Amino acid sequence: MNRTVYFVSESTGITAETLGHSLLSQFDTIDFEQVYMPYINTAARAKALTLRMQEAADRDGVRPVVFATMLNNEIRDILRNGNCFYMELFEAFVDRLSAELGVPPSLQSGRSHAITKPSFYTKRIEAINFAMANDDGIRPDNFHRANVVLIGVSRSGKTPTCLYLAMHYGLRSANYPVTEEDFERGDVPQLLYDCQQKLFALTIDPQRLQLVREERLPGSGYATLKRCQDDIRMAQQIYKRLRIPVLNTTTQSIEEISSQIVKALKDNQERELSKTVTMNS
Amino acid sequence: MNRTVYFVSESTGITAETLGHSLLSQFDTIDFEQVYMPYINTAARAKALTLRMQEAADRDGVRPVVFATMLNNEIRDILRNGNCFYMELFEAFVDRLSAELGVPPSLQSGRSHAITKPSFYTKRIEAINFAMANDDGIRPDNFHRANVVLIGVSRSGKTPTCLYLAMHYGLRSANYPVTEEDFERGDVPQLLYDCQQKLFALTIDPQRLQLVREERLPGSGYATLKRCQDDIRMAQQIYKRLRIPVLNTTTQSIEEISSQIVKALKDNQERELSKTVTMNS
Repeated sequence: MNRTVYFVSESTGITAETLGHSLLSQFDTIDFEQVYMPYINTAARAKALTLRMQEAADRDGVRPVVFATMLNNEIRDILRNGNCFYMELFEAFVDRLSAELGVPPSLQSGRSHAITKPSFYTKRIEAINFAMANDDGIRPDNFHRANVVLIGVSRSGKTPTCLYLAMHYGLRSANYPVTEEDFERGDVPQLLYDCQQKLFALTIDPQRLQLVREERLPGSGYATLKRCQDDIRMAQQIYKRLRIPVLNTTTQSIEEISSQIVKALKDNQERELSKTVTMNS
Repeated sequence: MNRTVYFVSESTGITAETLGHSLLSQFDTIDFEQVYMPYINTAARAKALTLRMQEAADRDGVRPVVFATMLNNEIRDILRNGNCFYMELFEAFVDRLSAELGVPPSLQSGRSHAITKPSFYTKRIEAINFAMANDDGIRPDNFHRANVVLIGVSRSGKTPTCLYLAMHYGLRSANYPVTEEDFERGDVPQLLYDCQQKLFALTIDPQRLQLVREERLPGSGYATLKRCQDDIRMAQQIYKRLRIPVLNTTTQSIEEISSQIVKALKDNQERELSKTVTMNS
C-alpha cells in the first residue's frame, strides 16, 4: 500500500520535515510517498494543496497524512478541513510553552531557520569556509585553530563529516588523511599528538571502502580489497597509539557520527572543567 | 531572566533540537541557555540528567524546560518526574499516527537519522562530493550533470548554499563565480544559458559584501565598497539577461535560500510535466 505524506509549512518546512520523518521512521513497513510543501503562506496556496490532497486520496485509496507547523489559524483550518489526516506539530506545544513561560508567542512564521542570531550564523558560515580550506590535510599547521580534527584513510568519510560539523554546530573542522607515508613510519606527525583532545578517527569496513574507491578510481591498485584491508589495519594501529575514539562510517550516518563527536567534545570539556574546579578547591 | 533548556534524546537529538528551536523562536524576548543532551539511553544517564536539571533550577530560580523525543517509557518517566517543564515531542503523535496507519510503531530509537535508506544516503554523500569537486566554477563542463547551478560574485554565499543543497536534499550542486572577465564581455558563457532552468543567482548587499571581503583580503582593491557596488551592479545586469531568479543572502539563511530553490525546481518540473500532459492530450 502506498500512502502520500505532505510536510507543510508557512516557511522553509524544515521543522515539519524533520519531525515528520522521525515519526514516519517508526512505521518502516509502510511505503510513504513524501511530498515537501514549503511556503504555504496564503489561503489560496492552502486551497490548492487541498485539491492535491484529494487527488492523492483518490489515487492511493486512502487519505494522505499531513505534518504541518502552521501559525496562521485561517490557513491551518483550510488544511485541517481537507481530506487528510492532519497532524499539527506546533499548536499544542506553543500554547503549553506560552503558559509555562508567561509570555505570548510572536506567531511569526519562519523564525527558526532565519538569521535570528547573526553571531551563530556567521560562526557557521566561517566554520564551513574553514572546513573547505582545511580539507584533506592541506594545512596541518592550522590544526591548532580547529575545534575538531578528523583522521582517516582516503574515502573513509572525513570530508562530509567535517562539513556537517561545521554547518550544524559551527565547529571549525579540519581533517588529516592517514597515508602510505604514515604507514611506513608507523606513526603520524607530532602535530596530531598535539591535538589529541579534539582528534577523532573515522574507520570503515574494507568491503565498503573498496566499493567507494572502485567508484572513484575503477581498477586501480588503490581500490583493491587487499589494499583497503591493509590501509585500515595499519591505520587502526596508529589510532591505538594515538588513543583516540574510533567511529565507523559504514553503519553510521554523518549525523550520528557528528552528534557523538559533539557529545565527546563536551564531555572532555566538562572533565577539564571539573579537574580545574577540583584543583582550585 | 535566564532559563535553561535541554534537548534530550535517546539517540542523536536532532529532532528534539529542531522542533525545540522552532518552538523557542516564538519567544524571542527570553534568554535561553540551550543544552544539547543526546544519547540519554539508560536509566542512569536519565537520573544524572535530573540532577543537572535541579542545579539549573536552583541557579535560574525557575525550573528548566525539557524538549524530549523518548521512546522508552522508563527513561521518559525518570525525566518527566525531574524538576522540569517536560515536553514530550513524540508520544502523542506516535500513538495517533499508529491508530491512523493501523500498525504499531517499532519503538526503536534513532531510526530517523540512521542510514535507513542507503540509496538516499549514498545520493547525499555523492552530492557533497560533487559540490566539492564543482565549487567555484572549476569544471563548467560538468554543469550538465548538476541538478542545480548557482551564479554569484565572489563571497556571495555560493559555496555554503551548494553544500547545504547537497547535504540535505541530495542535489548535485555546482557554482559559477561571475568575474571581471564576464563583466568586460557583459555576458556569461553559453554553458550557463544551457542550464537556465536550474540556474539561480545569489546576490548580497554591497555593504555586507565589503565586510566579508575585507575579512578575507584586508585592505585589497577587491574589498573596497566601490568595487563591491560595481561587481553587484554588473552582475545584476547579467542575471536580468539570463532571466533567472535572484536570491539575497544578506537577510536570508542558507536554509531559507535552499528551500526556495528546491521549491522553484519542483515548480519548474511540474510546469514541464503539465506542458507535456497538455501536448499529449
